[in-house]
Amino acid sequence: MSYVAPVKDMLFVMNELAGLSEVNALPHCEDATPETVEAILEENAKFCGEVVAPLNHSADKDPSAWSDGKVTTSKGFKEAFKQFGEAGWQGVQHPVEFGGQGLPKLVATPCIEMLNSANLSFALCPLLTDGTIEALMTAGTEEQKNTYLTNFISGKWTGTMNLTEPQAGSDLALVRTRAVPQGDGTFKLSGTKIFITYGEHDMAENIVHLVLARTPDAPEGVKGISLFIVPKFLVKPDGSLGERNDVHCVSIEHKLGIKASPTAVLQFGDHGGAVGMLVGEENRGLEYMFIMMNAARFAVGIQGISVAERAYQKAVAYAKDRVQSRDLAGSAGAVTIIHQPDVRRMLMSMRSQVEAARALAYVAAAASDAGHHHPDEATRKASQACYEYLVPIVKGWSTELSIDVTSTGVQVHGGMGFIEETGAAQYYRDARILAIYEGTTAIQANDLVGRKTARDGGAVAKGIISQIHKTESALSVAAAGEFGDDLQAIRKRLVDGARSLDEVVNYVVANIKTDIKGVFSGSVPYLKLAGVVLGGWQMARAALVAVDKLKAGEGDAQFYKAKIATARFYADHVLTQAASLRASIVEGSAGVMALTEAQF
Amino acid sequence: MSYVAPVKDMLFVMNELAGLSEVNALPHCEDATPETVEAILEENAKFCGEVVAPLNHSADKDPSAWSDGKVTTSKGFKEAFKQFGEAGWQGVQHPVEFGGQGLPKLVATPCIEMLNSANLSFALCPLLTDGTIEALMTAGTEEQKNTYLTNFISGKWTGTMNLTEPQAGSDLALVRTRAVPQGDGTFKLSGTKIFITYGEHDMAENIVHLVLARTPDAPEGVKGISLFIVPKFLVKPDGSLGERNDVHCVSIEHKLGIKASPTAVLQFGDHGGAVGMLVGEENRGLEYMFIMMNAARFAVGIQGISVAERAYQKAVAYAKDRVQSRDLAGSAGAVTIIHQPDVRRMLMSMRSQVEAARALAYVAAAASDAGHHHPDEATRKASQACYEYLVPIVKGWSTELSIDVTSTGVQVHGGMGFIEETGAAQYYRDARILAIYEGTTAIQANDLVGRKTARDGGAVAKGIISQIHKTESALSVAAAGEFGDDLQAIRKRLVDGARSLDEVVNYVVANIKTDIKGVFSGSVPYLKLAGVVLGGWQMARAALVAVDKLKAGEGDAQFYKAKIATARFYADHVLTQAASLRASIVEGSAGVMALTEAQF
Repeated sequence: MSYVAPVKDMLFVMNELAGLSEVNALPHCEDATPETVEAILEENAKFCGEVVAPLNHSADKDPSAWSDGKVTTSKGFKEAFKQFGEAGWQGVQHPVEFGGQGLPKLVATPCIEMLNSANLSFALCPLLTDGTIEALMTAGTEEQKNTYLTNFISGKWTGTMNLTEPQAGSDLALVRTRAVPQGDGTFKLSGTKIFITYGEHDMAENIVHLVLARTPDAPEGVKGISLFIVPKFLVKPDGSLGERNDVHCVSIEHKLGIKASPTAVLQFGDHGGAVGMLVGEENRGLEYMFIMMNAARFAVGIQGISVAERAYQKAVAYAKDRVQSRDLAGSAGAVTIIHQPDVRRMLMSMRSQVEAARALAYVAAAASDAGHHHPDEATRKASQACYEYLVPIVKGWSTELSIDVTSTGVQVHGGMGFIEETGAAQYYRDARILAIYEGTTAIQANDLVGRKTARDGGAVAKGIISQIHKTESALSVAAAGEFGDDLQAIRKRLVDGARSLDEVVNYVVANIKTDIKGVFSGSVPYLKLAGVVLGGWQMARAALVAVDKLKAGEGDAQFYKAKIATARFYADHVLTQAASLRASIVEGSAGVMALTEAQF
Repeated sequence: MSYVAPVKDMLFVMNELAGLSEVNALPHCEDATPETVEAILEENAKFCGEVVAPLNHSADKDPSAWSDGKVTTSKGFKEAFKQFGEAGWQGVQHPVEFGGQGLPKLVATPCIEMLNSANLSFALCPLLTDGTIEALMTAGTEEQKNTYLTNFISGKWTGTMNLTEPQAGSDLALVRTRAVPQGDGTFKLSGTKIFITYGEHDMAENIVHLVLARTPDAPEGVKGISLFIVPKFLVKPDGSLGERNDVHCVSIEHKLGIKASPTAVLQFGDHGGAVGMLVGEENRGLEYMFIMMNAARFAVGIQGISVAERAYQKAVAYAKDRVQSRDLAGSAGAVTIIHQPDVRRMLMSMRSQVEAARALAYVAAAASDAGHHHPDEATRKASQACYEYLVPIVKGWSTELSIDVTSTGVQVHGGMGFIEETGAAQYYRDARILAIYEGTTAIQANDLVGRKTARDGGAVAKGIISQIHKTESALSVAAAGEFGDDLQAIRKRLVDGARSLDEVVNYVVANIKTDIKGVFSGSVPYLKLAGVVLGGWQMARAALVAVDKLKAGEGDAQFYKAKIATARFYADHVLTQAASLRASIVEGSAGVMALTEAQF
């Protein structure tokens, strides 16, 4: 099989680091027992590995194609999507009343990871539908929920997000699409939206676009944007499909990667106006879209982990198979390249970053669950704040590292990595969008600096850092026993990392008002530092659990020993970056803005 | 124009850092006066910018195509290559007696940079021909030189390197191609070679393959490999072309990048045997191929700089043009994105790395010139040793950073960077081969550790480090005056960097025999560290020159101020990585080899 889901590591992270049993104890999460969750993951792993993963490479060679306004998706996509919907995978985290399984985000997250590892292009369609469901759950009327959610969750219909316009990019203040009220409660929309993922395709009976547009009297800027439902086929009162709406796909993009996912240019209202229904209140569209975007941002972070995991698996398989050169310290004959120290270093670099990013993302998902369901209000609020701090990090850091990991995957393959038929290059191409869409890394970093750090004076960040200090203490204690060298080394790097992060948080809070450009010069390095350190923290926690398990003689000793070694590698090769990032942020702003525009 | 050669920076580096006037004073280098060199660079810049660069993007969309054994290159390539040959650009660094210009490597280097910035795929053909010329100059008979070199240098014929076989990769001990003597001084070759760049094409009258093969009684392993000339068309005694030889292109690869350069699978001897002529002595083929490879490795390092420079220029142009979001510290309206701090950080990261890598490569080229031509034998030997130490660094570091720089270039473009028509993605794809071919970064790093550091007990490395200390002293002195803050900051990072490099050299020398796998676990990080520090050293030297020029009121003040700011940025954002690399190398080997094969 081209992809075998790392269910063992997923369950380890869920049970030992993210606290599945605590999540299971929350109201509305009673179904998520460890046994049920394991069964779900095994079943999902099977579906992703057997049905979806085999379509990944063929779909890259034979991508979605546009003809006369219609998009034909890659061979096998339609059938796989039908199975996906019928098996209930779209509904894992969505309400039971609309046909979902109502499971916690912590359980949905590995399912999203697996689907994206199997096929990033395919998985984008459900990912966008998830966002649409979130937005309608929050801001839609009961009628809208009843009309759309069951069809989304069953996989009959899919959803899209329509933000970007040719002149606007990430700057939504510039949105120009117009929505004119028709007096009957509906609006007519006209305008052009670009970069619309699965904006047109043949996998579902209907496509429901959520569209940002301006009503005639709306104020300028982001406070004058409203959100509309614009279905491809209008929905009759009885729920059946009616007329074709005036929204048309005029082209799809020729992209570097994720070629099988159609990226549409949508034209609204060229033939009289596209009928749209307002979602929530006028001029609050951005707020609702942020709900959708926050869900999508977290999911895109998972995509980074997914493609990195897949690239890692491929690289390991190649390194175990490819015979070349003799062992440096061994016999005369040629050996498989996994014997070469630099191949090992590359594989460990891939593996350790994937495991760290997975652990951090799942811990964030659990925080989201507590943020929604914890009975104690203070805990709920604190958990939600923690989740919100982590979202830009999960999104920005996991996607940035996926570029590095997939590039390393190509490198492990040597010349074969550059040949498209090998498949390693596809992950490298596919991964490159992840740090761009749903907000570039810079946009995530601005969010981290502004809304998530400066606004509360660094309180949430400091709270997390104080938890890291507890892990440092636990490492000190445990380092007296077996695996002491590893735990000592991990502790040393974690202490340095936490100190660097603490200093950067202080710097951001102290300087945001007096030197805004200086602080934002270091925003992306701050995001990376936070990812590196918080990921290292999770690896340290994992190593502590592994040592405990080994001491107790529980479980799979090889797995736990590998976890300790991987945490050690991460500490020495990734966490070590913390000090240099700190220096660049705190002492490095002078050079960033020094040139005049003409000097470039 | 899509590419404007950075002639000003090139001349600055040549004159102020690489010592063009000292090179000009060497025997055989008298023609390379500063005035002549400037004229050559201007002329080359014009040719590259006007003739070659416009073919880059179109050739990516319409790559070389194979049909029935013949390869048709992209539109415009044939005509451009004719102009290239006629203008004498193939001969810049080659002997006057064979029609070349006989100029130093220091002068050829910026010409190679420009051609590769203009069009990496196109430039590969001359790059391989350069290598073929080097090999025949060293090991060919007078007759072979007379037969081939003039035709190479005029651009009538081109050359290729045939090392790799399907089962062999970088491990030449496994070469199986056979060469059987025919009793008339010729051999008949049979076998398959893969990854042969420009192994077949329509740009030249003849293609001359240099092929590694084994004679019947050759010893096993790398000591039984001989080098043969196998021309596509046999050459008659009068120099005219004769029969078609039995070497055929059976397919070309479908690659991630450099799509316009045909990468051939060549079949030798399927129809009775390909006629080949031995080069030099039997069983010394690998030695001769290394001559070719060392020239090619340096040139591939330049390719990294080239594609990074082109990506930088494109990103700057986009950042100055794209209007989006307001200035963080400014007015309400949207501004060009070059006003955003993170866009600045990305542009400075690209710019500073390109400038540092260029400076180091040109300094290496000047060392090669002194290594060949200096009248004093000790200086000649020391210069050659310095050059040889720098080759794996120039190759490995410049190509690795080109992945980072071209990726950042995509990021500056946001969503548009992922759309192939924009062109930024092509650089990202093209760059990815550079750290692989002509020896992966790991192979360069093994060379750096083994032959270039351990073998002489670190003597050459230490010599270079002692030169860095002189620059540190000069920075101390100069920091008392204007631009003192910048020079202080640069000095601080350079001192840290040189110390890290020194410690790593000590570690390599001390541990290579007792812990070979541990040392080689850190080989690539050592290569990167060396690049980062030596590049930073050149930027520091550049800043010192710039301060002097500004104090003296000489030249273009804006250029020198930008140089200081760029050196400062490099110090704070790139040189800062040195300490973390040192830690990974010296303290980080434990995790690299810890897993058993089964644990992956």
